[in-house]
Amino acid sequence: MELYDIAIIGTGPAGISAAITATVRGKKVRLYGERELSSKMRKAERIDNYPGLPRISGEELGKQFSRHLADLGIEVEPRRVTLIVPAGDKFLLQDGSGAEVGARTVILAGGVAPAVTLPGEQELLGRGVSYCATCDGRFYRGKNVAVIASKPEFEAEADFLAEYAKKVTYLPLYKEKPALSRENVEIVEGKPKSIEGEARVRALLTDKGELPVDGVFILRESVLPDKLVPGLVTEKGAVVTDRKMATNIPGLFAAGDITGTPYQFIKAAGEGNVAALSAVKYLQ
Amino acid sequence: MELYDIAIIGTGPAGISAAITATVRGKKVRLYGERELSSKMRKAERIDNYPGLPRISGEELGKQFSRHLADLGIEVEPRRVTLIVPAGDKFLLQDGSGAEVGARTVILAGGVAPAVTLPGEQELLGRGVSYCATCDGRFYRGKNVAVIASKPEFEAEADFLAEYAKKVTYLPLYKEKPALSRENVEIVEGKPKSIEGEARVRALLTDKGELPVDGVFILRESVLPDKLVPGLVTEKGAVVTDRKMATNIPGLFAAGDITGTPYQFIKAAGEGNVAALSAVKYLQ
Repeated sequence: MELYDIAIIGTGPAGISAAITATVRGKKVRLYGERELSSKMRKAERIDNYPGLPRISGEELGKQFSRHLADLGIEVEPRRVTLIVPAGDKFLLQDGSGAEVGARTVILAGGVAPAVTLPGEQELLGRGVSYCATCDGRFYRGKNVAVIASKPEFEAEADFLAEYAKKVTYLPLYKEKPALSRENVEIVEGKPKSIEGEARVRALLTDKGELPVDGVFILRESVLPDKLVPGLVTEKGAVVTDRKMATNIPGLFAAGDITGTPYQFIKAAGEGNVAALSAVKYLQ
Repeated sequence: MELYDIAIIGTGPAGISAAITATVRGKKVRLYGERELSSKMRKAERIDNYPGLPRISGEELGKQFSRHLADLGIEVEPRRVTLIVPAGDKFLLQDGSGAEVGARTVILAGGVAPAVTLPGEQELLGRGVSYCATCDGRFYRGKNVAVIASKPEFEAEADFLAEYAKKVTYLPLYKEKPALSRENVEIVEGKPKSIEGEARVRALLTDKGELPVDGVFILRESVLPDKLVPGLVTEKGAVVTDRKMATNIPGLFAAGDITGTPYQFIKAAGEGNVAALSAVKYLQ
């Protein structure tokens, strides 16, 4: 098993700052996120209050951050972590790579958690509801599944699922036309309303009607923090931390928008630094 | 009386960040500190973990910060605030200018508090011990005073005192030779040991002997936070704040090294941002 000192989830200012400080402190870091760094960050039109870089665009700030990461030899692992489980003196991470990945400490820096979940989503998670096609796809051989995807990048996961499933019903939550060509994939422009079922998922309700399915894959940029780490304490969706960015779970830290307002680049970068130093201290 | 929305004490990364965010949010700001910005900051040899500005020197980071402040039209008021008193819906600041200065909110960002105080200093504060020559000098007309100064910039305050006092004994805590030429100023290369007296200051004890004086002016870069703001809660010398950088005093916030470890540029900048936004919210 690959074992890291610190796994960092997220490539916005918080995750980037945490990775920089942890690396400067000589720790073995795994940074999960987008190779091009957080797209939300890069889309910021102009940031006026990142001290030292007046009137910078998100695009340009992203470039500066990329240069800084490259300068320190930090690479981004472009995978989505969907489950983090404490296991003795370390954490096990499900990142869809198939391999077991362990980290002695973890820093959550995945940004604002999705505000809404579908009715039935939380209740049926692990019983037909999944956040990771590459992790759970093989359990749906010959079955019918629905995929709810928040952005085009997830089309590859639908393609992967189609190798196993009898039929994949794909609901894009974005404007671009999906580029999916497999015969057993149907694109439905419906809005998901709820997930139905008792012991297990039975159907997905949409505004265009009911889809009888055995599984529902919900592919969003970020997973609700307390679903990502079972047992994690949150308040109004935000991860609760102390001033050292420690959560209620020993060895697990959080930084940036995921910890709540204000949603600010420099606040996030500052918290990433503190979280990294707290993780370094925890490792001693 | 001049009344500001937010008075910010300190021109390190925390104070600078607070001033930038508060100004961007349209608030009337008074930023106290060094025109050239924090000398401690500028002396940093190299900072590796300020995201976006890899391997930057303190000198260069200071220049970038100065450019940012100039870009927003923010000026530094090069005065030392020695007392902040809550007064109804605002704070009154003693900044040695002679004028009354008020601020509806205050952000303390003066850096690490001095670790040591002299025996007798706290007990006799206000009864012969003072942190501000321009504030209290007039009370020592015809008397003998000692001045303990941590850097050459304070020589002007000793000169000012010499206009009132019968005799000024000047103890420099720095290496440079003091440029003081008034006849009634004597420079003593002694180490202060304690301040003696009961109802009032009677003498200053040094390693070279006892100096009988009526007053002792202690001129350090920063005043102990709970002396600066009577009633402020501190722990091991650091100002206690919550995650929104609020102190125990409504309308008073703190950010950066003054709030405790880790002592990091980006942590300080992040906290300055949060403190400013909390002050903005408080003002509403």
